[in-house]
Amino acid sequence: MSIQMNQSLSVDCAVFGFDGRSLKVLLIERRYVVPDTHLDPLKLPGAMILENETLPDAAYRVLEEATGLRDVYLKQMEIFSDPRRVWGEELEWINRYHNIRTERVVTVGYYALVKLDARTIAYTTAKGAQWVEVESIQRLAMDHKQILSTALRVLCREMLQSPVAFELLPRKFTIRQLQDLYAAVLGIEIDNRNFRKKILSSGFLTPTAEREQGVAHKPAQYYTFNKNAYKRALKEKLRLGFINNWRY
Amino acid sequence: MSIQMNQSLSVDCAVFGFDGRSLKVLLIERRYVVPDTHLDPLKLPGAMILENETLPDAAYRVLEEATGLRDVYLKQMEIFSDPRRVWGEELEWINRYHNIRTERVVTVGYYALVKLDARTIAYTTAKGAQWVEVESIQRLAMDHKQILSTALRVLCREMLQSPVAFELLPRKFTIRQLQDLYAAVLGIEIDNRNFRKKILSSGFLTPTAEREQGVAHKPAQYYTFNKNAYKRALKEKLRLGFINNWRY
Repeated sequence: MSIQMNQSLSVDCAVFGFDGRSLKVLLIERRYVVPDTHLDPLKLPGAMILENETLPDAAYRVLEEATGLRDVYLKQMEIFSDPRRVWGEELEWINRYHNIRTERVVTVGYYALVKLDARTIAYTTAKGAQWVEVESIQRLAMDHKQILSTALRVLCREMLQSPVAFELLPRKFTIRQLQDLYAAVLGIEIDNRNFRKKILSSGFLTPTAEREQGVAHKPAQYYTFNKNAYKRALKEKLRLGFINNWRY
Repeated sequence: MSIQMNQSLSVDCAVFGFDGRSLKVLLIERRYVVPDTHLDPLKLPGAMILENETLPDAAYRVLEEATGLRDVYLKQMEIFSDPRRVWGEELEWINRYHNIRTERVVTVGYYALVKLDARTIAYTTAKGAQWVEVESIQRLAMDHKQILSTALRVLCREMLQSPVAFELLPRKFTIRQLQDLYAAVLGIEIDNRNFRKKILSSGFLTPTAEREQGVAHKPAQYYTFNKNAYKRALKEKLRLGFINNWRY
């Protein structure tokens, strides 16, 4: 077998948001689809790497173009390098869309976590992008369904291992919102009282003086995430020494 | 700026071994260097990705060609995508060596941990490769010094967070060997008694009936790593719930 030539490198980004009920991902409709092909129209935001760019440069560019946001949680996950990940009509679409002649595209998957506030939704809507419930997605362009599945798996793992959940919530949130987010992402039911007790005893949440307004039930208190308390706890844990911190 | 074309994808692998005294890395001398260039002769084992390969395929191929080993600890670390990471004479060397015409090479860094037993040393020696003390390395070809530094940083982190150290030791080892390995990789002095106490109280080491032979000092006992005990402890830790497992 020969060395692969005429190949391209791209980034594809699963941008997650939480609307209070379900986990959403940002999808864009691809342009220039030949009308009678069977290609799936929806895809993750992505781009080919440019001559002067590193891969993270490209990922931040894609994120900013898609959401208008810069300073958000963005992490590289996996590289998708299956030689046949895009081929046939999909490869033709890529070549036609970008006006290039490539024989293979290796893509680096990223995932981003954004707060679904009014400004971000207005921006993405103006761009013609859609926030689609992750659960409801059956098919996507190319191997983007697989990239999304990987991103979701990484998000689940990260939410169990670190406080990334707060990247998806407004700065002030109720315990119930946090619980609903965990339930939505992990796809599990969570016991109210246990969750409340556990999260409050962690010492990582700071109560605010504010409460929900205009709700039918008893208005819940708002909290903020105390990043410094978390960092201190983490430092203490690391201080305990290496064997206490082993994981696989 | 335009989409990058005429680019290549490669893998480069930092293969670490421990000889009981210091941490070593496997280096190979590159061939076909024009005699009067100033290019550094030593490099990490690496390869261009082939047409039918995924990146992990390529990494395992490189590892096997370099060490004769298959089933060893091999992990992807970082992608090196600086547009200028190889250029000028280095890029020319690549094109001449592989008989290709590429304008940019993005490489994916891997690191591997192997046991430096007689068979592996015989294999690598026959191949003309060298096990070089990591500490002593000043310069390497292209950006391989940077790739090595990244690999070393990842190895340090992993050794603090998981029991990867045992991948570098013989199946049966003394506590002293384990301590020397930690001291060599982390570049720190470690208190004998504390280390011994901590590692034994973890319950992850199983004593064997064997002791060192032909040593001047009191012969030390050999231990093996009890992977199952570690896995059980990890499961128990995970069972405690997500907040207990948060890290950043």
